[in-house]
Amino acid sequence: MDNSIKYALHGKLIAQEGKGNELAKILLYAASLMKSAKGCHLYIVGVGNNNPDEIWITEIWDTKEDHDNSLNVAGVRELIGKALPILNGRPEKGQEWNILGGTGID
Amino acid sequence: MDNSIKYALHGKLIAQEGKGNELAKILLYAASLMKSAKGCHLYIVGVGNNNPDEIWITEIWDTKEDHDNSLNVAGVRELIGKALPILNGRPEKGQEWNILGGTGID
Repeated sequence: MDNSIKYALHGKLIAQEGKGNELAKILLYAASLMKSAKGCHLYIVGVGNNNPDEIWITEIWDTKEDHDNSLNVAGVRELIGKALPILNGRPEKGQEWNILGGTGID
Repeated sequence: MDNSIKYALHGKLIAQEGKGNELAKILLYAASLMKSAKGCHLYIVGVGNNNPDEIWITEIWDTKEDHDNSLNVAGVRELIGKALPILNGRPEKGQEWNILGGTGID
């Protein structure tokens, strides 16, 4: 991993009861689209330990700008359109932090 | 990324004032040791946006057992011995979650 400081975002989306699986599938598809997104090193989707409708995402990008621009990747806005109706309330802002280094991503 | 569910841990260690850099270096060295640890997919070290002494770590392992066993990797216990004296209080338990899939790790 090169030692330029990277942008990380860790946050959750809460699905309406029983729709966690459906939301996770949407986000996993989004993750596949991120392969081609400029500056994307990591886009990982998972589920909370205590609530199957709590879907977590952790992302690492070269810059926040790259992250913000990923909204323009083909197909992403359609996926957001699919996810919003099955969310349980407004998403909370995720935790932003700065990656210093480590192992596991290029 | 194969689609077996993986174990993720996201948490922070708070250094005594002005020792964030020193703590980060210890953890970055630990990250390098994790390259050889069984089941380690990701061990990333970073710093909080608002506090240079707040050092964040996010990890992905095949299993929790692999994570727990990493304490036995040569050199890890010495690093823990270096980190503990410069912490600001007891570390909080990190957030455990289950990875469903995504992009960026093998």
